[in-house]
Amino acid sequence: MTRDDLYPSRHGARPEILDRRDPVTYDGVPGPIDDDTLACYAERGFLHLPALFDAGEVAAFQAELDRLAEDPEIAASHRAVAEPDADHVLRSIFEVHQISPVFRRLAQDPRLCGRARQILGSGVYVHQSRVNYKRGFEGTPFQWHSDFETWHVEDGMPRMRALSVAVSLSENNDFNGPLMVVPGSHLRFVACVGETPPENHKRSLREQVYGVPDHDSLRRLIEPHGLVACKGPPGSVTFFDCNLMHGSTANLSPYPRNNVFFVYNSIDNRLEAPFADLPPRPEHIASRCFVEVEPAS
Amino acid sequence: MTRDDLYPSRHGARPEILDRRDPVTYDGVPGPIDDDTLACYAERGFLHLPALFDAGEVAAFQAELDRLAEDPEIAASHRAVAEPDADHVLRSIFEVHQISPVFRRLAQDPRLCGRARQILGSGVYVHQSRVNYKRGFEGTPFQWHSDFETWHVEDGMPRMRALSVAVSLSENNDFNGPLMVVPGSHLRFVACVGETPPENHKRSLREQVYGVPDHDSLRRLIEPHGLVACKGPPGSVTFFDCNLMHGSTANLSPYPRNNVFFVYNSIDNRLEAPFADLPPRPEHIASRCFVEVEPAS
Repeated sequence: MTRDDLYPSRHGARPEILDRRDPVTYDGVPGPIDDDTLACYAERGFLHLPALFDAGEVAAFQAELDRLAEDPEIAASHRAVAEPDADHVLRSIFEVHQISPVFRRLAQDPRLCGRARQILGSGVYVHQSRVNYKRGFEGTPFQWHSDFETWHVEDGMPRMRALSVAVSLSENNDFNGPLMVVPGSHLRFVACVGETPPENHKRSLREQVYGVPDHDSLRRLIEPHGLVACKGPPGSVTFFDCNLMHGSTANLSPYPRNNVFFVYNSIDNRLEAPFADLPPRPEHIASRCFVEVEPAS
Repeated sequence: MTRDDLYPSRHGARPEILDRRDPVTYDGVPGPIDDDTLACYAERGFLHLPALFDAGEVAAFQAELDRLAEDPEIAASHRAVAEPDADHVLRSIFEVHQISPVFRRLAQDPRLCGRARQILGSGVYVHQSRVNYKRGFEGTPFQWHSDFETWHVEDGMPRMRALSVAVSLSENNDFNGPLMVVPGSHLRFVACVGETPPENHKRSLREQVYGVPDHDSLRRLIEPHGLVACKGPPGSVTFFDCNLMHGSTANLSPYPRNNVFFVYNSIDNRLEAPFADLPPRPEHIASRCFVEVEPAS
């Protein structure tokens, strides 16, 4: 390791908890979030806004999601990812802001990118976008993880200056595996064990094995503030820091739980070479097309 | 099929939903449940009583659970069942009312067996008892199922005149996979497809494959009344009908979710030969020791 690495992971034989070396919020870009809420985001690492989109908007997003799922060309493409134990069950489609006009516009919606720009204090570009289909009875859990750990190691994202936005198209309730977060966990970095194998993303997008924090580190992160489940009506939106620990359980309800995700990265935090000694992941998972999102007016 | 079978299952090529042919509650034995609550149990199929046991009692049960888990003789015995993907992780210990004085007394506690006798309108015996350990981060989901379907097919329980009692030793919350039930589902019987293989219980207690209802039947059962998650503080108790659909998600919390289960069957509903053409399951899973429980005074 000759290169300077603020957040080394998947090197050592033992897990380690390091302090965050970057701010969570940045000054300089005004936006719709008030000061108290912004301070709360900095402290807790997430902001949950119930019903930010109305029923008509949600219906239009859902129709687009259905259209994408039924497109045989998309299903057969590298953008489609199946459930870990069921090749025929769609779990995610990536790069939806490039292949769908509806989701391209949504990425530019000031309610989303305006808040992202404000929190990150700069222009932003879309590092990754996807829709997640957590089908009734079939969707499997996402284990606890920090997205940044993977984006840093496998994609070369240098600093913690990015965030995810999850737009729920379904009610999130006790039964369909809502997003669960560990408040405050974004202020610590869990260096994970195990060296990343080549082509890891082909497996990891279905079920993550590398970059998974150990139970003892998780216990230490969860202990101070417990856990929060981001429940709410359709159209609810959760903004969360790139390093916030999150996960979700299986969907035991008969109803699907559909989400649209955008990852906004600061235009000043462009990807470099991966911090693991591996080729970068493909464009549809980790974009190197650093084009600033223009908020729609 | 020459023998008369009110609830045929695992015979046909297609699933089928049949009506229940037995009452849910029976007259004749007085008890602590008032008439309205009893009517509600008949209609919904379950009764959830938060904090029926106090903190001191729960602590004593938990200590006994720990003692059993740490006993190497028990862990090595046929009574111990591991998680489906982890041989070393204990999921259940069966027949605890026989091997533990604490749980033998608990089975006789009038708060449990008094209600069971009242609901079933007769004396009762313990058809099955167990403790479930749903460890932090590790406990896997229980898929939707009706216990009666298995008890009928594999154990020869003739009629629906039994119930389960789940005593929670942990808080049940959003994060640790609480018991979820389908209100009203006990009034219908889902005949499942697939023939039962010999020695099925060696697999099914870890992860059920046979006697699992199909998604379409589940949708039809869930549609009228939705789902309920039985959350509550430690010491909460859920009584539920033998034919109520229930399940639970994974435990994503760092904390264990421990339960003690007793299945009380009416002394007038003793086991016969299994309705599948197979030898009966072993005694520790389906008791044929039809000794009436004497409520402790």
